[in-house]
Amino acid sequence: MTTRRLRLGMVGGGEGAFIGGVHRFAARLDDEFELVAGAFSSDAARAASSAATLRVAPERSYSDFLAMAAEEAARADGIDAVAIVTPNHLHHGPARAFLEAGIDVICDKPLARTVAEGEDLVSAVSASGRIFVLTYNYTGYPMIRHAREMIAAGALGAIRIIQVEYPQDWLTEPLEATGHKQAAWRTDPERSGAGGALGDIGTHAFNLAEFVTGLRCESVAAELTAFVPGRRLDDNAHVLLRFAGGARGALWCSQVAPGHENGLRLRVYGESGSIDWMQEHPNQLRHATFGEAPVVISRGGVGGGVAAAHATRLPAGHPEGYLEAFAQIYRDAAALIRARRDGVRPLPECALLPSVGDGLRGLRFIHACVKSSAAGAQMTPLED
Amino acid sequence: MTTRRLRLGMVGGGEGAFIGGVHRFAARLDDEFELVAGAFSSDAARAASSAATLRVAPERSYSDFLAMAAEEAARADGIDAVAIVTPNHLHHGPARAFLEAGIDVICDKPLARTVAEGEDLVSAVSASGRIFVLTYNYTGYPMIRHAREMIAAGALGAIRIIQVEYPQDWLTEPLEATGHKQAAWRTDPERSGAGGALGDIGTHAFNLAEFVTGLRCESVAAELTAFVPGRRLDDNAHVLLRFAGGARGALWCSQVAPGHENGLRLRVYGESGSIDWMQEHPNQLRHATFGEAPVVISRGGVGGGVAAAHATRLPAGHPEGYLEAFAQIYRDAAALIRARRDGVRPLPECALLPSVGDGLRGLRFIHACVKSSAAGAQMTPLED
Amino acid sequence: MTTRRLRLGMVGGGEGAFIGGVHRFAARLDDEFELVAGAFSSDAARAASSAATLRVAPERSYSDFLAMAAEEAARADGIDAVAIVTPNHLHHGPARAFLEAGIDVICDKPLARTVAEGEDLVSAVSASGRIFVLTYNYTGYPMIRHAREMIAAGALGAIRIIQVEYPQDWLTEPLEATGHKQAAWRTDPERSGAGGALGDIGTHAFNLAEFVTGLRCESVAAELTAFVPGRRLDDNAHVLLRFAGGARGALWCSQVAPGHENGLRLRVYGESGSIDWMQEHPNQLRHATFGEAPVVISRGGVGGGVAAAHATRLPAGHPEGYLEAFAQIYRDAAALIRARRDGVRPLPECALLPSVGDGLRGLRFIHACVKSSAAGAQMTPLED
Amino acid sequence: MTTRRLRLGMVGGGEGAFIGGVHRFAARLDDEFELVAGAFSSDAARAASSAATLRVAPERSYSDFLAMAAEEAARADGIDAVAIVTPNHLHHGPARAFLEAGIDVICDKPLARTVAEGEDLVSAVSASGRIFVLTYNYTGYPMIRHAREMIAAGALGAIRIIQVEYPQDWLTEPLEATGHKQAAWRTDPERSGAGGALGDIGTHAFNLAEFVTGLRCESVAAELTAFVPGRRLDDNAHVLLRFAGGARGALWCSQVAPGHENGLRLRVYGESGSIDWMQEHPNQLRHATFGEAPVVISRGGVGGGVAAAHATRLPAGHPEGYLEAFAQIYRDAAALIRARRDGVRPLPECALLPSVGDGLRGLRFIHACVKSSAAGAQMTPLED
Repeated sequence: MTTRRLRLGMVGGGEGAFIGGVHRFAARLDDEFELVAGAFSSDAARAASSAATLRVAPERSYSDFLAMAAEEAARADGIDAVAIVTPNHLHHGPARAFLEAGIDVICDKPLARTVAEGEDLVSAVSASGRIFVLTYNYTGYPMIRHAREMIAAGALGAIRIIQVEYPQDWLTEPLEATGHKQAAWRTDPERSGAGGALGDIGTHAFNLAEFVTGLRCESVAAELTAFVPGRRLDDNAHVLLRFAGGARGALWCSQVAPGHENGLRLRVYGESGSIDWMQEHPNQLRHATFGEAPVVISRGGVGGGVAAAHATRLPAGHPEGYLEAFAQIYRDAAALIRARRDGVRPLPECALLPSVGDGLRGLRFIHACVKSSAAGAQMTPLED
Repeated sequence: MTTRRLRLGMVGGGEGAFIGGVHRFAARLDDEFELVAGAFSSDAARAASSAATLRVAPERSYSDFLAMAAEEAARADGIDAVAIVTPNHLHHGPARAFLEAGIDVICDKPLARTVAEGEDLVSAVSASGRIFVLTYNYTGYPMIRHAREMIAAGALGAIRIIQVEYPQDWLTEPLEATGHKQAAWRTDPERSGAGGALGDIGTHAFNLAEFVTGLRCESVAAELTAFVPGRRLDDNAHVLLRFAGGARGALWCSQVAPGHENGLRLRVYGESGSIDWMQEHPNQLRHATFGEAPVVISRGGVGGGVAAAHATRLPAGHPEGYLEAFAQIYRDAAALIRARRDGVRPLPECALLPSVGDGLRGLRFIHACVKSSAAGAQMTPLED
Repeated sequence: MTTRRLRLGMVGGGEGAFIGGVHRFAARLDDEFELVAGAFSSDAARAASSAATLRVAPERSYSDFLAMAAEEAARADGIDAVAIVTPNHLHHGPARAFLEAGIDVICDKPLARTVAEGEDLVSAVSASGRIFVLTYNYTGYPMIRHAREMIAAGALGAIRIIQVEYPQDWLTEPLEATGHKQAAWRTDPERSGAGGALGDIGTHAFNLAEFVTGLRCESVAAELTAFVPGRRLDDNAHVLLRFAGGARGALWCSQVAPGHENGLRLRVYGESGSIDWMQEHPNQLRHATFGEAPVVISRGGVGGGVAAAHATRLPAGHPEGYLEAFAQIYRDAAALIRARRDGVRPLPECALLPSVGDGLRGLRFIHACVKSSAAGAQMTPLED
Repeated sequence: MTTRRLRLGMVGGGEGAFIGGVHRFAARLDDEFELVAGAFSSDAARAASSAATLRVAPERSYSDFLAMAAEEAARADGIDAVAIVTPNHLHHGPARAFLEAGIDVICDKPLARTVAEGEDLVSAVSASGRIFVLTYNYTGYPMIRHAREMIAAGALGAIRIIQVEYPQDWLTEPLEATGHKQAAWRTDPERSGAGGALGDIGTHAFNLAEFVTGLRCESVAAELTAFVPGRRLDDNAHVLLRFAGGARGALWCSQVAPGHENGLRLRVYGESGSIDWMQEHPNQLRHATFGEAPVVISRGGVGGGVAAAHATRLPAGHPEGYLEAFAQIYRDAAALIRARRDGVRPLPECALLPSVGDGLRGLRFIHACVKSSAAGAQMTPLED
C-alpha cells in the first residue's frame, strides 16, 4: 500500500444529503481514496460551500457534472473514479458522462429509474471499458460474504427456500408532505422511478438474495401497496419469488412497519441446512445443519472463512457495522482499479463487486413487480 | 371450584400417538377434567392396553367410537365432553357421532379433510346445540390474548400489514418413507386432506392472524411446493394474503426449513404501532409505537392486561409454555360447559374459544391455497 | 403406570399463598399424585374453605399438622407423602412430625431457618428412613440436567469459573410495609431466618451451581446489603465463591434490581468449554467449545442427552417452563417412593433429587455469608 | 471543518501490532487527523518499512521516540498530537517526552505499569499544560454516553448496584508459550505491570462503571487467579466493589472464559430503574423503569438524547461498532485540541474525554485488587 491514494470525485452529496456522507466515510476508512473534486450541488454557491467544508479545492468544485467529467478527464491529476450519490433520476446522466470521459464509476443504487436507462448503462460500461461498481453495500458485510461462500461450497445442499425482508418505519406517516427532502424524492415517481419502497430497499433485498445464493430469480408475483393516503409510490411490497432450479422464496419490504429501523434479514434453506443473518446484528451468522444443534458463527471468530476474513478489519467481538461493510465496496473497488492500472489480475474478491448488470437486474425486478401487482399479483417473468 | 371435575372421554391418543398426550396434560393441568372413557384405538386389545395405562376403567374402554358415543350418552355418569385427537380423516365421523349423542366436543385441528366435511360439521353443531371447541391451541397463549386485546382497543391503529410464519424442519428428509407414523399420515392426502404443511401448521398460522387482528382474510395467492422427492402433499407454502378493509399480509409455513423447530411467529403492523410474538419464547411480546422506543411486555408483568391475566397461572419471569396455553383451551371450554350446565352466562373469555366456524375457515383457506397454487399463484377468494 | 396415584397431603398453601398452588400444579401434571388431605391453614375455617375448593374431603382437612400426621399415618388410605409449603419457620416442625409418623416429605426451600434446624432434620431423615425431597425446583429443568450431564462427562474439561446470578425486582420498594403477605414474611428474620434475598433466591442459585458442576463450595466472601430503608434482611447479596479443587466463582442475588423478574442465570467455564443457561428462556442451552463456534442446544432437540430426555414431555420447539420443571421433582419423587414401596432399585435419575443434605448446605451457605458480611466481606469457610 | 486536518504522530503500531491499526482507523474516520510521523518501531528498518506502508514521509520516520519528540516539536509543520500505542511499559516514557516537548498526547490504556508511573504522568500533564487523552475507548459508544446522561439526569434514581463484566477467551490456553506477540507481553509483569486480565480489560470495565454512574469506587475485595499453569499474571479476576454513597457492585473479567469474545457488559440499577448494555451489540440500550415494561433504546432512534447524538454518525438501524466508538475519542480530542488552539471554550462533550486522572484511578484499582487478593480477598481501599 505504498502507492498513492486514489483520487475520488463525487456527484451529489452536498449539504442536507444523507448517502453522500456515507460514501465519504466508506472511501476514507481504508485510506485508499482521497476526495479531491466534486459536483456536490447544481447550485454553484452551495457546491462551493460543500467543497470548502470537505476540503476540496475551489477550482475542483463544479456545479455541472458534465463540466466536471470533462475537466477532470483533462487534468494530469484528475480523479481516478467518481462516486455518484444523487437521487435515482440523476444516476444515468452522470454515469454515462463519466464513463464516456474514461473515468471509473461508483454509483449508488438503484442503478437508474427505468429498465431502458439501465440497459443503456450496461452498453455504456461495455463500450467504455471502464469499471462500474454499484453500491449494493450489504454485500460488503463479512458474514454475508461468508454465507455466500458456504452456500457455494455446498454447506446447505441444494437451495430450496429464500426468505428475505427489509422492513423500515420511517415513512409510516406522510413525511414527504412535511418537506422532508429524503422522503420527498423517494416518493416521487419522477425522481425515484416506478418503485417506492421497492426501489429504495426492495432492490437491496433482492440483490442480497441472489448474491448470497448464486441463484437467479426468474419470476415474481407482487402485491404493492401505498398505505399512506396520497402517497404516489408503494410503501410496502410483498413478493413471491421463483428461482431457476426450483427454489422458492418470499420478499417483503416496507417503509411503514412501525418498530423497524433497517430490519434487513436474509434466511436461506437448503436440503441439509440453513443460514440466518440480520443487518442490525451483522457480526453473527446463524448456521443450522439438519440433525445438528445450530451454531452461531461470529465475524472474525472460529468458523469464519476466507471470504469473511477478506472483508473484515477487527478481531471477533469488536463489532463492525454498516460503514465497514460499505467501505468494503470501496476497498474492493480500489483493488480492482489498481489492478487494472497496474495490468495485473485482480484479487478474486473483486469479482464479488456489484456490477452494472446486477443493477439492471434490480430494475427488471422493479419492473416485473409493478407489472405483476397491476395485474392482481399475477406471476410475471423478470425478462420479457 | 368446589364442583366435581368434568368427565372427559377421548377418541384416539393411544400408544404411539403424539397429540393425545398433549390433550391429556392440558385437560389435567387445571384440574377441571378427569379422563374416564376412551376409544384410544380401533384395535380392541391396544385400546384396552392404553386404557389400563391411563387408569380408565376397562368397561369404559372402547374400540368403536360409535359404541362409545352411544354408551356414554346412556350412562348416568357418562362423559361430559369428548376429545377427538385422531388424524384428520377421523375428525368428522366421531365429531358428528358425539354431537348427535348430545356430547360436547373438543376436536383437534384442522377441523376435517374437506370443506364439505367442515360445512357438515357446522350444520351438525348447530343442529345439536352442543359445544364444539377446536384446539387452535396457540390462541391460548397469554401474550396472544394480550396482543388481540391491544389491537381491539386500537393500540396499533388500523391494521395494515400481517406477517405470519410457521417454519419447522422435521420433514426435511423423506421421513414418511421410514415408517414414521406421524410423518406418514400427515403426508398422505387420504388421511390429511389437500394440505400438507398447509393443513398441519399453515392453518394454525392463518387462524392466529385472524384471531389476533380480528380481520378476515378474503383472498390468497399461494405457491405450494413439495420439495422432498415423492412427497404427495406440500411441505412448504408461501401465501400472499388480502384482508377485508385493505390490510395485506404474507404467510409462510414449511416443514423443510432446517434449523426451525416450531418457529411460529406473528407480526402485526398498524398505522401507529406493531406487535411481534414468537411461539418459542412465548412469554414476551414486543410492542412498538411509532415514534417511541419499543417495549417488551412480559406475561404476568406490568403492561399485561385483563385478557392475558385470565390466561395465565404464574407470576412474571417464571416461564409458561405450550402445555399451559393448550390447557387454557380446556380451562375455557370447562367454563363454557359449566355455564351452559348451570344456565348462567359464560365468562366473556369463552367467546375466544376457537369454534367450528373457525375450523371451516381453515378448510377454506387450504382449499383456496391449493386452487391458487394450481393456477400459478393466482389471487383466489376464500369463499367461492 | 397402571398403579394407583400416590396420595398427597399438604401443609400450608391455603388461600393467599403462592407456592402451594405451584406444588399442586406440579403434583398433578404427570398424574402421579392426587391431593387427598391438607392442613392448609392453622385457622380451621380457612383450612376447611381451602379444602373444599381443592376437593379435599372435609374429614381430611386439618388445622393442626401434628394431628394430620398422626391421623393420616393411622388411616389405611393415608397419605403416601406430604408437601410442606409453609414459610421457612414452619418447615422444621411439620417435616419432623411427618418423618416421625413414617410419611415421606416433599419440602419447599430453604430447608429451615437455621443450621441447627437443618442438622436436626438431617438426623430426623436418617432416623426415620423416610424419603425427603427439597424442592430446589430449578434442578428439574431439562437443560439444567443436560448441563450437569455434559460437565460430568467432561465436555467442558476441568471447571474453572462459575457465575451464577438471580436478580428480581419485586422488593425494589418497601412492599412489606403495605401488608403484602409474601413480602412480609420474607423480610422478617423470625419467619425467614438470617437470609433475605439470600435465603429466598440465593440458595437456589447456590444449589444450582453445585448441582450442575458437581463441585463443593468451600468458602465465601459476602457483601449483604439492605438497600430499602428499614428492611431487616438483605435484599441484595454479592458473594465470591471458592470451590474445592480450585474453581472460583461469583454469585449475585437481588430483589431490588429493576427490570428483572426471575433472572436466574448460570454460566460455567471449564478448560475447554462453557455452558450458559437462563431460567427465563429455559429451553435453550448455549454451549461453547474453545476453538469452535458456539452451539445452541434446545430441549428435545438434537444434541440433548439422556438426562434431558428423562426430564421432558414435549418435542423441541414447544416450550416447557417452570411448572414442568417443578413437576419433574414430583415425578422423580414419585418414582423414588414407588421404588421404595415396591422394593426395587430406583431409576438413576432419582439420585438427582435435592436432598435434606442439599438443604443443609444451603443453610450453611446463608450462615457463612451472613458471618462474612458482618466481618467486612472476609473469606469464610462454609463449615466451621 | 474548513480548517486543516490535525497532524498526528504515532509511537508504536508497526507491523504485527494490533491496537495501532485501530488508532489509525479511528483517527481517520472523521477526517480530523492525518498521520504524518511515527516511531513505529525501535528497529529503524522496521520503522521505515511501516512508515512507507502508511505513507509517512521517510524523514518523519523515527526509531527513537525521544528524537521524534524533539524533532517534531522543532518543525514548523510538526505534529499536533501523538498517539502512544505501545505495550504498557512503554507508555510512561514516551508520554512524558512528548508532554515535555509541548505536544498533546493520546495514549492507549492502561495508563502505565505502576501507580508511581501514573502519578508522575499526572504531574507531567499538569506541568506541561498539554492535553492528555487516554483511550478508554468504550466511553465513546453512543449508548454509553446516553446511559451516563440518563443516570446524571436521575432517570434511575440513586444508584444501588453496578454489575460489570468483561469476559474473553483468547488466553484459555497458554498462548504466550507459542510466541504469540500480543499474548506474550500481556502476560509478562515486566511489560504489563501487576495486572493481567485485570490490567488489559478489567481497567476498561472499572472505568466504564465509574464513567457511566459518576460514582467513585472506594474499596475492593478481589480474587485474582491465574488458571493457566505457568501464567505469571491473573487471567481471571472477581472483584467486589464498594462505591461512595453506598452503592455496591461486582466486577468480573476473564481471559479464560470459553465462548466469549469481548463480552463487556454493564448493568446499573437504581432506586427506580436500570440500564443494561453489551459491547457486542452496542447499538441497543435496555432501560427498565420499575413498574413499567422495559424499553429498548437504539442508537440514533427515538429515546436517544443529546449525548448519544453527539457521538454518532448514522441513522438508527445501521449499526455502528467499535471503530466508530474509538473514533469518537479522536473526534472529541480533535475538538479539544482545536478549541485550545483557537482559544475558545471547548464543547461540553470534551469534558467526557478520559483523562490522565482516570488512568491513574485504573492503576490504583489494579494495585488495590492485587493487594486484596494477596490478603485473601480482604476489603481494601483504593487510596492508601
